[in-house]
Amino acid sequence: MASQTRGARSRQHLLDAAASVFRDYGYEGASISEITKRAGLTKGAAYFHFSSKEALARSVLEEAVTTDGVVPQTLKLQELVDIAMALAHRLPREPVQAAALRLAVDSTACRLLGTAWPEWIRVVTEVLEEAKRRGETLPHLDPPQTGRVLMSAWTGMSLVLDEVPNGEDLEHHIASLLDHLLPSIAVPAVLARLDTAPGRGARIAPVGPVS
Amino acid sequence: MASQTRGARSRQHLLDAAASVFRDYGYEGASISEITKRAGLTKGAAYFHFSSKEALARSVLEEAVTTDGVVPQTLKLQELVDIAMALAHRLPREPVQAAALRLAVDSTACRLLGTAWPEWIRVVTEVLEEAKRRGETLPHLDPPQTGRVLMSAWTGMSLVLDEVPNGEDLEHHIASLLDHLLPSIAVPAVLARLDTAPGRGARIAPVGPVS
Repeated sequence: MASQTRGARSRQHLLDAAASVFRDYGYEGASISEITKRAGLTKGAAYFHFSSKEALARSVLEEAVTTDGVVPQTLKLQELVDIAMALAHRLPREPVQAAALRLAVDSTACRLLGTAWPEWIRVVTEVLEEAKRRGETLPHLDPPQTGRVLMSAWTGMSLVLDEVPNGEDLEHHIASLLDHLLPSIAVPAVLARLDTAPGRGARIAPVGPVS
Repeated sequence: MASQTRGARSRQHLLDAAASVFRDYGYEGASISEITKRAGLTKGAAYFHFSSKEALARSVLEEAVTTDGVVPQTLKLQELVDIAMALAHRLPREPVQAAALRLAVDSTACRLLGTAWPEWIRVVTEVLEEAKRRGETLPHLDPPQTGRVLMSAWTGMSLVLDEVPNGEDLEHHIASLLDHLLPSIAVPAVLARLDTAPGRGARIAPVGPVS
């Protein structure tokens, strides 16, 4: 058991190191030697966990789709807000998130691996469908379409902020995005009760300092 | 005069060729020889117009920010819609637009050249400021913030559609994005009069077939 736990730990360590290298150098620029160096492992130990750079990248993309920390709320749409805010808190702090975003806009990596976007659209669409069943959304809402708009707009905000910083953090920008979109999603009585304060992500998804 | 016109034409030809190469190969992968080959010019002729690959890329980014075809409307917010819809029509048809987007998410190109995003945010913000002065927007609207949300969300929609196509074209997705955002921007009386039909881009910005 102890050795299994150690194994799981070094696998996670390797994945985090790979994510930080993909984030910094892109897919083609990432080398196994830089990854193992950052993980403090030998190449042999690395290949015990992952057969290739491609396998590492696939695991990074899988791990990036997470709603960790998001718990059931009275209003389903609050869970939607929480997913968006938790991710905004994570992106600058968790290399896995930054790596998934960089790989998604890297044409070589895209062709080889696809992106985490279809899975994100699915997650968001499911929440919207449940919110609609509960009568929280405007009646004309089309969950797959709105799910796509939300996910795409979220992605655009984070990419632009990376290149055109303006002194505010991603959590403020995502809160602003939600404030722009939610009036087209929620019925007024629900809208008034949604908490989109920028600090919400930190409360939901407490992660370590920026790495 | 005839020779000047010919010069301007071959400069434009070269710029379009460069854009298509940047779009297809990214900044680092783009070679001057491929660009001159596509333009049907000699390297000598190319260097007469542009001193370097970097100069070509900068000109592509400058040319990408365009409101060509957008004409004054009774409602300033209709001009905002028109800018977004014209660009959605252009992106799949004009290599300059696709190249600017690819260069913006290419980290090497970004560091070297910046992106066209600050200029787009400025353009959109100015339109919003004028719309606000005319009383077309909700009173609490913050033009720079909403301008950023609009531009970022537009960008996200186009990037995601590139990787996760779903049978609809960018013009449909941008129309849907506008339908989601405008209720947070326009006063109801203006909102009801805005035309966000997906075909609007083609009427504003008639360009050739997809190249």
